[in-house]
Amino acid sequence: MKGLILKIDCPDQHGIVAKIASYIADYAGNLIELSQFTDEQYGKFFARVEIDTSDLTVDTEDFISGFRTLGKSLSANWDFRHYPYKMRTAVLVTNTNHCLNEILWRTQLGEMPVEITSIIGNRDTCQSIAEKAEVPFHLVDMDGDATKKEAGFQQIRQILIDEQVELTVLARFMQILPDWFCQELGGKIINIHHSFLPAFIGANPYRQAYERGVKLIGATCHYVTSELDAGPIIEQEVKRVQHFHTPQDLMRLGRDCERIALARGIRYHVNDRTIIHRNRAIVFPD
Amino acid sequence: MKGLILKIDCPDQHGIVAKIASYIADYAGNLIELSQFTDEQYGKFFARVEIDTSDLTVDTEDFISGFRTLGKSLSANWDFRHYPYKMRTAVLVTNTNHCLNEILWRTQLGEMPVEITSIIGNRDTCQSIAEKAEVPFHLVDMDGDATKKEAGFQQIRQILIDEQVELTVLARFMQILPDWFCQELGGKIINIHHSFLPAFIGANPYRQAYERGVKLIGATCHYVTSELDAGPIIEQEVKRVQHFHTPQDLMRLGRDCERIALARGIRYHVNDRTIIHRNRAIVFPD
Amino acid sequence: MKGLILKIDCPDQHGIVAKIASYIADYAGNLIELSQFTDEQYGKFFARVEIDTSDLTVDTEDFISGFRTLGKSLSANWDFRHYPYKMRTAVLVTNTNHCLNEILWRTQLGEMPVEITSIIGNRDTCQSIAEKAEVPFHLVDMDGDATKKEAGFQQIRQILIDEQVELTVLARFMQILPDWFCQELGGKIINIHHSFLPAFIGANPYRQAYERGVKLIGATCHYVTSELDAGPIIEQEVKRVQHFHTPQDLMRLGRDCERIALARGIRYHVNDRTIIHRNRAIVFPD
Amino acid sequence: MKGLILKIDCPDQHGIVAKIASYIADYAGNLIELSQFTDEQYGKFFARVEIDTSDLTVDTEDFISGFRTLGKSLSANWDFRHYPYKMRTAVLVTNTNHCLNEILWRTQLGEMPVEITSIIGNRDTCQSIAEKAEVPFHLVDMDGDATKKEAGFQQIRQILIDEQVELTVLARFMQILPDWFCQELGGKIINIHHSFLPAFIGANPYRQAYERGVKLIGATCHYVTSELDAGPIIEQEVKRVQHFHTPQDLMRLGRDCERIALARGIRYHVNDRTIIHRNRAIVFPD
Repeated sequence: MKGLILKIDCPDQHGIVAKIASYIADYAGNLIELSQFTDEQYGKFFARVEIDTSDLTVDTEDFISGFRTLGKSLSANWDFRHYPYKMRTAVLVTNTNHCLNEILWRTQLGEMPVEITSIIGNRDTCQSIAEKAEVPFHLVDMDGDATKKEAGFQQIRQILIDEQVELTVLARFMQILPDWFCQELGGKIINIHHSFLPAFIGANPYRQAYERGVKLIGATCHYVTSELDAGPIIEQEVKRVQHFHTPQDLMRLGRDCERIALARGIRYHVNDRTIIHRNRAIVFPD
Repeated sequence: MKGLILKIDCPDQHGIVAKIASYIADYAGNLIELSQFTDEQYGKFFARVEIDTSDLTVDTEDFISGFRTLGKSLSANWDFRHYPYKMRTAVLVTNTNHCLNEILWRTQLGEMPVEITSIIGNRDTCQSIAEKAEVPFHLVDMDGDATKKEAGFQQIRQILIDEQVELTVLARFMQILPDWFCQELGGKIINIHHSFLPAFIGANPYRQAYERGVKLIGATCHYVTSELDAGPIIEQEVKRVQHFHTPQDLMRLGRDCERIALARGIRYHVNDRTIIHRNRAIVFPD
Repeated sequence: MKGLILKIDCPDQHGIVAKIASYIADYAGNLIELSQFTDEQYGKFFARVEIDTSDLTVDTEDFISGFRTLGKSLSANWDFRHYPYKMRTAVLVTNTNHCLNEILWRTQLGEMPVEITSIIGNRDTCQSIAEKAEVPFHLVDMDGDATKKEAGFQQIRQILIDEQVELTVLARFMQILPDWFCQELGGKIINIHHSFLPAFIGANPYRQAYERGVKLIGATCHYVTSELDAGPIIEQEVKRVQHFHTPQDLMRLGRDCERIALARGIRYHVNDRTIIHRNRAIVFPD
Repeated sequence: MKGLILKIDCPDQHGIVAKIASYIADYAGNLIELSQFTDEQYGKFFARVEIDTSDLTVDTEDFISGFRTLGKSLSANWDFRHYPYKMRTAVLVTNTNHCLNEILWRTQLGEMPVEITSIIGNRDTCQSIAEKAEVPFHLVDMDGDATKKEAGFQQIRQILIDEQVELTVLARFMQILPDWFCQELGGKIINIHHSFLPAFIGANPYRQAYERGVKLIGATCHYVTSELDAGPIIEQEVKRVQHFHTPQDLMRLGRDCERIALARGIRYHVNDRTIIHRNRAIVFPD
């Protein structure tokens, strides 16, 4: 099936759904799925619409460009995506491989419509996994002083540009990103943090969780912003633990949360099921 | 806020959402929330729409009756509900009171828009609870032979008619209902079964669960049909158990599942968030 | 069945279980359940033992006092409790009643071996619930300046002494406790905090959770210490939420977490299934 | 650390723990972890004991053989395992690879103390995975009539013998096993069934779940017995689903349950944390 996904947000007003749905119907588009949300506090309307374009009476590009009149009249931001679609995705790693393996595996199974452009590591630990998966691997050395690190991120930036990367996934990438990097990739970079945010921000969250004696540990998939571990949350997952679990046990058990939360978060993003509004992520789950 | 909830289902066809949303917009109704679902297997469209009628340019009753033309043109079944609304609800009980207490408590808190018309018991065990909650209690004795039992259900039927009951809740009511009763109340009677259906249909599900050695027990809230424990499922809830839990422990732990699943199921129903289609319940959760 | 529960902790060393179990066996006590935990980091051993004393060859009090020799030789702290046992428990409330109702209901069902000595409120909102449950209610007015508040806590202290209260439960009691009060009741006072600690410490956690855009909300049952919301965690519970849930929705959904987490936490405590070690609670679940 | 794991069951009687723990202490074994369970219905005692043998005053083999006197006096069944230990494990597959990948991945990470002896498939679909993981792959063709199938199972049997396999895992192996095979491998063969047993026994459980309209789907890891999908349950996992999920969605979502439940089930088994009693599995979780 050929189709379009429309994501739109605009100031709340009467008749938005009628106008959008009528535009689609006027050209014999088939509205497959409509998810909408009105944020009453901020007076904003958000929607995601799946449109089957098989029977469209106009050219798809004309359908898209013609929406402009309606979109502007609603003072909206909107975006159309052709689907099926594979989002060009780079995965950044350091040493641990469970999140990387999960992404590769789900991609192979067709669960996640992404094309892995490359795996980028500041260590070569995951190189052999990349090779077995037949995905390019870039080693970006950033050990040393601030200059070295800055150069590393410039190098990563260039790879993302060269490979026309649309989504960057931090799959347990153990480096603090510079501000300019976060800002440049705003809304196009996803991280998995190994705690139930906002608890245990920063380093060693499993150790922190152990010390605090929590009875549930978690993982959080979120958009990256300049502020550490504070970006919009896409997905979270938790798991029950007990007093006898050591920090090493928490690390082991937490991996399952990390894998699941990251995989779902990426899937939501690449299927255009997320809209960022202020510091929150609207997620229309599937 | 004054408003309407529209529930509708019809054969799938192009432009349904456009037509419905336009009808609402034409008379300045404000579409607050639209949930839709297309069952591709059966070619059927289902939707629930919340409409704020504060700014309606026509009388609400005219708005409702005028929808008939569109509804019929879509070959639809539809229903409008004025809200806020309190559904007249009778609760049937035998001995155990945890489900009854949960309903009363959530009703008092305003979590469930129901008006408890009465509590009907085939035992008087819950009578004092009814009295404390200032709700009428009817004792319907149905012990004895089939004639006695049949008379009991006729008596209950008459109470439901006299009290203009719209929803009947079996809150651990320990009697098999006669066919005619199930059919007469079809779609308006909800049961909580103390297992994760379709596992452990019938009597003593916790004992059955213990014997089978399951590691999770559950509860199922479902619409009642003539076939025992086989009606459309509205909500389910589970809880982890271990080998050392006796059937009595399962009973204790299961109560939490029963209370939660039943409360959510009733809430979905009275907020018109369910549509029965064949033997499945479409539920638009909140 | 008559019996004893032994809770013990001591420096880790060879043969502890053998010595304890042999002492019990020597006098024909029947070891029903033994749960042990060794904290390797701190070199400490912890255990909880259920002993059926029906066949004891000595007087139970002699059995208890005779344990002293072994206990001291292990440099242990230990405690015996006769069971069945009902712990004298006071419940502190302000306005909301869901946690109070949950405690009352589970007590009536026999799920929690407590005797509610009284309900103490700094508002009279829950007075009618106390009356229906036939439990004494004390209104302790603490509105006003610091002196008034201090006097209020002195009054509560006196009630706890007069009523020989063994456990104090803060069932959504909306007052910061003075240091001396926390210290005096150390290990004998349990709070339910309406967030997944350590996230959202302090006031309005549901509002904080909404602002942060979390996808799971929670509740934490913990021992109270002088530091706000920082005491040893006994139990936690979470629930999935979505972007469309308002702070009011979170409050409603969170109540289920609070009720469950508090009920389990109390049950663990009164069944002597918890041991506090540093700032963590060892919990042997049932 | 060098050590032993003792699994034991015997008729319930006074002093069992004292005798076992004293035996260990007498020879300066260090009891690291003791888990016990008494099944009151059948009057049976079960325990698992981890013993650090670093300081043992006798030879480990003498320690093991000397336990015989005590074991027999208790009329017990018992078994000692030296640890660390890697259990020789064969994985049987057909087409789908998610369970196989999960096992390989967790084995590489050291989460599961197994040595994968080989992967055995009645299709060659997973052969390339085996090759990348550098594990032998055996293709056992069993398509055709009953004779062909019987020959296939005889061939598998011979592989298991030749490779000294201790545990056989059915990782979505799509063949009904012959009785003699189940009986020969009794207690040493684990299956993952893609439903929440005992619901949806047999073929196409996700289709069955869809038809029944359940709101939670699951997976069950269990010991294989002659009766289809009816053996002792080791672990179960569930996941919430909604009306819009097709059978294909359930298949996708269910994979996560299958992977988690199977991985935990295997881990419990190979760490000697399970004891089969009648048709239930006692599981001492970690």
